[in-house]
Parts: sequence; C-alpha cells; structure tokens
Amino acid sequence: MIIEPDFEKAGGLVTAVVQDAATKELLMVAYMNRDAWMKTIETGNATYWSRSRNELWVKGKTSGNIQLVKEIRFDCDADAVLLLVDQKGAACHEGYRSCFFRRITGDRFDIVGERIFDPEVLYRK
Amino acid sequence: MIIEPDFEKAGGLVTAVVQDAATKELLMVAYMNRDAWMKTIETGNATYWSRSRNELWVKGKTSGNIQLVKEIRFDCDADAVLLLVDQKGAACHEGYRSCFFRRITGDRFDIVGERIFDPEVLYRK
Repeated sequence: MIIEPDFEKAGGLVTAVVQDAATKELLMVAYMNRDAWMKTIETGNATYWSRSRNELWVKGKTSGNIQLVKEIRFDCDADAVLLLVDQKGAACHEGYRSCFFRRITGDRFDIVGERIFDPEVLYRK
Repeated sequence: MIIEPDFEKAGGLVTAVVQDAATKELLMVAYMNRDAWMKTIETGNATYWSRSRNELWVKGKTSGNIQLVKEIRFDCDADAVLLLVDQKGAACHEGYRSCFFRRITGDRFDIVGERIFDPEVLYRK
C-alpha cells in the first residue's frame, strides 16, 4: 500500500513544491493528480499534471531536464507535497536552474537566477 | 506602482511557497488573493488567504509565530510566489518548525521535523 496525499481538498490536485535535494534551492511549483503521484512513485521521475495543457507531464521528457526523486514529504494537511530531487540541467523552461529567478522589489524585477540553457535552442523544432 | 503576480490564472489565488531566509528550509505552502498580497507588501508580515476558513489570515496573529518577509520572488509564470522569511517560533499549527515534518517512504511516515511548541498548550482557550 502506498500512502497518498489528500487529492479531494482542492478538486483532485495537490500542490508539489520541488527543492534541490543537495542545496535546498526552490526549483519550481507544480501540481499532481493521483495518476501523476502514482507515476512519480513507480518511476522515481517527478511527474505532474499540467493545468494549462490538461495532461500528464513527465518532467524533462522533452528537454531531458528530468528530476530524480530522492525524498518525499507531506505537509500537516497532506494537501501539499515536497519533492527533494536531483535536478538534471535546469528546472525552468526559460532556461534557468530555478523557476524563481526574479526578485521583486516594489515596482522592479531583478534577475537573480542562473541561466543554464537558451530555450530558443533547446526547444527549436 | 507595485508589481503583482497573476491572480487570474487560478481563480484569484496564487500559490505562496515559504522558505526560511537563512536556512532555505521549506516552512509551508499557502495561498494569496490580491488583498493578502497587498497586505503582505504594505506590512512586511506574511498574510494569506485561508481556503478552508475563507478569510484573510495574518500568519501568527493568534500564535505570535509571525513571518517577517525578507525577500519575494516570482516564478516564470508569475502564478506562484516565493517568500523568504524570518520565521518567529514555528510555522506549523501542529508545533513543528516546518509543516513538512513527515517523510513518506512507501506505506510509512517518519517524523523528521523539529517540534517547537505543543499546540494543545498554545491554542488552549
């Protein structure tokens, strides 16, 4: 038997927070339905539910930037999960190591993240 | 002018991920509407929208376990925000420093978090 998070609380999805297992850097936030959860457990590769594309999304399947899951935690309500991962390449489709590469100060953005690849090259047809 | 995250994408709410500014420990996940966002910016105290109570929730107002916001980041889609905070006491209402105090291994929970207070004492009427 596999323990499950609480998918009912927010309409079938739980929030998944993804940290680098070694540095604790926050890499991204995504969402999981039960299929994504089961696939993550079974394969060890982080798999999400894409809210914009409405489909299962094996992270890195297109880009090669996969996430190997090292540890999983639940929060107190079990409606959010933490994945501690070994991130290959970069988590962000814009080429940054972390999706959280913009620092906000009042009306200003500063880019504080490290860019690993150029998305125009990686995702070129 | 204050920069805002994208509240429209998910029905008026953005996901807020909260990390300890010093250690990068993931403390909790919560949600913000525009009021919560503005109040957080104006006061410097992390403020959320409680999805279960349907009300604005100044973190630590009851318990004293406030979060002083040191830095804010947006993700690439601007529908999730990262708060780097100075957490007073503990983030979790169950008394743990972090809400993510349970590690999942197959069918087993392990408590891996540090308990700071006893909620039965703190929240006693």
